[in-house]
Amino acid sequence: MTQKAIVLLSGGLDSATTLAIATAAGFDCYCLSFDYGQRHRAELAAAARVAEAQRAAEHRVLKLDLAQFGGSALTDTAIDVPVAGVQPGIPVTYVPARNTIMLSLALAWAEVLAAREIFVGVNAVDYSGYPDCRPEYIAAFEKMANLATKAGVEGQKLTVHAPLIDLSKASIIRRGNFLGVDFGLTVSCYQADDAGRACGVCDSCRLRREGFAAAGVPDPTRYQ
Amino acid sequence: MTQKAIVLLSGGLDSATTLAIATAAGFDCYCLSFDYGQRHRAELAAAARVAEAQRAAEHRVLKLDLAQFGGSALTDTAIDVPVAGVQPGIPVTYVPARNTIMLSLALAWAEVLAAREIFVGVNAVDYSGYPDCRPEYIAAFEKMANLATKAGVEGQKLTVHAPLIDLSKASIIRRGNFLGVDFGLTVSCYQADDAGRACGVCDSCRLRREGFAAAGVPDPTRYQ
Repeated sequence: MTQKAIVLLSGGLDSATTLAIATAAGFDCYCLSFDYGQRHRAELAAAARVAEAQRAAEHRVLKLDLAQFGGSALTDTAIDVPVAGVQPGIPVTYVPARNTIMLSLALAWAEVLAAREIFVGVNAVDYSGYPDCRPEYIAAFEKMANLATKAGVEGQKLTVHAPLIDLSKASIIRRGNFLGVDFGLTVSCYQADDAGRACGVCDSCRLRREGFAAAGVPDPTRYQ
Repeated sequence: MTQKAIVLLSGGLDSATTLAIATAAGFDCYCLSFDYGQRHRAELAAAARVAEAQRAAEHRVLKLDLAQFGGSALTDTAIDVPVAGVQPGIPVTYVPARNTIMLSLALAWAEVLAAREIFVGVNAVDYSGYPDCRPEYIAAFEKMANLATKAGVEGQKLTVHAPLIDLSKASIIRRGNFLGVDFGLTVSCYQADDAGRACGVCDSCRLRREGFAAAGVPDPTRYQ
C-alpha cells in the first residue's frame, strides 16, 4: 500500500519543489494550504494549480484568521511590505508562529489519515531571519509531535521532512527543475496582483529572481 | 508594568480554574477560545461568561474548522459521544492534535502581545488517555516554542504553565473554589444543550460530578 504524506503547499516555488520531492519518493500526497488572511489570493490559486499539475491525492485549504492577531506585514495592512532589499534580522513579513500553526494543523490531518510523514518547504539559507525555519526548530517540532499524538504514543514515529532546509534558492530551483516542476504555476511575491503577477521588488521576488539567475534556469515569473 | 499572559479558556471548570490561578499570580490575562466545530456552542458562551466574571483583559474566539479533518466524536457527527463510562485507552472524544493547535495559536498571540507566559488547563490525572495532556508533552511544546519565535531567539524565555497537570479533579475544584471561581458559569459536558445544561452521562460529566462529590463542594451543574 502506498504511504500517505501531508505536504504543506503555499503556492510558492519552495513548496512546489517539496511536493515534487515527496511525490518522487513514492508518497501519496495530501496537500494542505491556508487561507490565513494573506494580502493577496494569488498564492492560493497557485497552490491549487500546483497540486493539480503534480497529481496530488487531495488538496485542502483551511481558513484561519491570523490577521486577527496582526503583527506581520503579510497579514496586517497597517504594516508595509518592505521593498528596499533584504535586510539583516527578522523581517516584518514574519508571521507570528506561522510554521508552528501550519505544522500543527498538518499533524491533525496526519493523525486522521494515519499518515506518518509531513513535508514542509522551509529553508534556513535564504530566509535565515525566520526562527521557525531552522533545523533545530524542525527537530523540536518533530519531537513534540511524537509526544502529542496517539500514533506517537503507540510507537509509530511521525517524521517531519524539510528537504530544502539547507539548500540555496538556486539549488532548490535546480532540484525542482530536474523533477519537472512547472515554476510558471507558482507565485512567490508577497504582494502579487490578482492575476498572480509579481511586484519584482519585495524580498521574496528578489530572492526568487536571483535564484533563477544563479541556477541558470529560465525565469517564468510574470511581473506587473 | 503588569505582565501579560495568554490563557486558553474552553469554558470548562479546568480552564476557569487555570484563569483564576493566572489572575491570582498577578498576570493581565488575555483569554483565547476556539470555535473549532464543536458539537455544541454552550461552552463558548460559558467561556465568555467566565472571562467576564474574572475580569480578563481580553477574550477572543478564533474560528478554526477542525471538523473538516474529522476523526473525533467532538467534531465529527458520524462518531457518537460515549456514555457508558470512562474506558481505558485513548477515547474517541480525543480531537487530533487539539492542544498542539491551540497552544500554537496562543503562541502567535503571545508573540504579538509580547507576552511570555501561556497558561493551559491540561490535566494528566483524570484524562490520562489524551497524549497531549502529559507533562513531557508540555515540556516538549515549550522547548519547540522557544526555538520557533523571535522572543525565544532573542533570549526572552516563553513559559507554558500547566498548573493543573498533576491535580485530581477534586483538587482542581477545591483550588478553584478557594480562588472564588463560580463553577455555575462553566460547562464541561461533551453534549450540553444550547442552554448549557449537561447530559450527566458522558465521560466529562461523570468526572466532573465525581470531582465535586470528592471535593465536598456543592455541585452547581444544571442537568438536562
